[in-house]
Amino acid sequence: MSIIVLGTVALDTVKTPFGKRRELLGGSAAHFSMAARLFTKVNLVAIVGRDFGQKHTSFLRSKGLNLNSLIVDKGKTFRWEGQYQGDLNSALTLNTQLGVLSVFKPRVSEEQRKIENIFLANVDPDIQEHLLAKMYSPKLVGLDSMNYWINTKRKELIKLLKSVDIYVANDQEARALSGETNLIKAAKGLCSLGPRMILIKKGEHGVLFYNKKFTFSLPAYPVEKVIDPTGAGDTFAGGFMGYLACARKISSCAIKKALAYGTVAASFNVEDFGLFRTSKLTRADLERRLAKFKDCFSF
Amino acid sequence: MSIIVLGTVALDTVKTPFGKRRELLGGSAAHFSMAARLFTKVNLVAIVGRDFGQKHTSFLRSKGLNLNSLIVDKGKTFRWEGQYQGDLNSALTLNTQLGVLSVFKPRVSEEQRKIENIFLANVDPDIQEHLLAKMYSPKLVGLDSMNYWINTKRKELIKLLKSVDIYVANDQEARALSGETNLIKAAKGLCSLGPRMILIKKGEHGVLFYNKKFTFSLPAYPVEKVIDPTGAGDTFAGGFMGYLACARKISSCAIKKALAYGTVAASFNVEDFGLFRTSKLTRADLERRLAKFKDCFSF
Repeated sequence: MSIIVLGTVALDTVKTPFGKRRELLGGSAAHFSMAARLFTKVNLVAIVGRDFGQKHTSFLRSKGLNLNSLIVDKGKTFRWEGQYQGDLNSALTLNTQLGVLSVFKPRVSEEQRKIENIFLANVDPDIQEHLLAKMYSPKLVGLDSMNYWINTKRKELIKLLKSVDIYVANDQEARALSGETNLIKAAKGLCSLGPRMILIKKGEHGVLFYNKKFTFSLPAYPVEKVIDPTGAGDTFAGGFMGYLACARKISSCAIKKALAYGTVAASFNVEDFGLFRTSKLTRADLERRLAKFKDCFSF
Repeated sequence: MSIIVLGTVALDTVKTPFGKRRELLGGSAAHFSMAARLFTKVNLVAIVGRDFGQKHTSFLRSKGLNLNSLIVDKGKTFRWEGQYQGDLNSALTLNTQLGVLSVFKPRVSEEQRKIENIFLANVDPDIQEHLLAKMYSPKLVGLDSMNYWINTKRKELIKLLKSVDIYVANDQEARALSGETNLIKAAKGLCSLGPRMILIKKGEHGVLFYNKKFTFSLPAYPVEKVIDPTGAGDTFAGGFMGYLACARKISSCAIKKALAYGTVAASFNVEDFGLFRTSKLTRADLERRLAKFKDCFSF
């Protein structure tokens, strides 16, 4: 089953203890796609400016993505500049230039409106709602957001959550939206807002999954040399949703496997800048590391 | 195989968001023992003052501990007062009264000197060294310490680590002693100081195990209502060392199982104040929760 992802395609300038890279291809939807494409056909819904460059478009197409709904508009591509220090657990945003993102109205083809697996990666909740309203038969809808929207568009976000199956948040966002410090309580609170599954990403500390029937916790795959964590959460979501989109049934076993695939995909993402590592990733790479990861828990 | 644990037996006054309790029986060796006793005979090496109270001694004896080397000296029992806030991940020490701990010279019987499994829980490295020197045939030696000793007795601690098999530290301590931010790098650095196994406790984020052959990571068992985390790390070590003391071989499988037992034991510890929960714990309770925990990773 194919998947449609709405989000940003961006040019990222990133500084980490391992160096600085300028105008790397990035953005939530791009990172998500690099992992999800290993499982299923990915339809990208995003906007870029006229400055985006043919090489980036060709690159995304060469990864098998359907770019029919990638709008190229007059204006500049969304740019983000950030910096990581110390343990690389949180980014300091130095600069954000919305560019064409400020006028983004997602467009999808009739064919794409029939897609049942939908991921609303981090953009303005109004844009997320706009796309979701166009879809004919949502079956599995995931949503990611960020503190900025939790603070400025809380009402819109909470309304949108009623139509969502899976809410993906990092620990800070989960605490901010639920008002709870304990993450299991936070997850419970978020569940009561609508989504039947809550996925809390904790960076190097792994992930917590909650639904009314069970709570799962997985550590991150241990990576010694974290070069650039930008997009790790989106890559995680790509692996998770990509696997579930193909699963016959959303059983507890399928969810655990999806969490493991997401974890392993994210571990590749942080090993190099931008999409460098995940764009070269094969399903076989993923399976090999999954087997190693699984070995950590078999006793 | 029996085990000997050196550490503190204390009277703890603890304030958490769930209330305040005064002069609870606690201390590193007491918490360790409550988990280790579920696997093997535990010999407690510690000191208390004349104010300790017969009821505490009787209580510890009723838990099957060998108290032959629990010194009762003139003076006051070691007291610690601390407070937890917010996510309960770190304690704020409000008051420490060393009492008899300041004159502690561990004594062990001839019989106890033959014990091969030794855990040096958190006390002054000089006291830890003093006990270790008395032991005839150490086979598996674990050591825990704290930032205070890393800062004030670094040289002594580093010397002692050469005679230790397992160094148990929390993430802050591991970073402080190794000078590395990335925890895998920190573990590598600590390994080069002597111990062949490094165990980094990350509180609610679980544990990282490192030796030259493999790196394991386990999440914490998800606990919704953390009442009092005091002693969780010691309880973890008790479960871990207790299991290994009985294992026929320290294989990678035994280590994983020991990590899981430690994790599960610690999850009980945080569910109530002091030793309230772990002192009532049975091996059957532990096994039941271990099965649940294991289920998180079986996919």
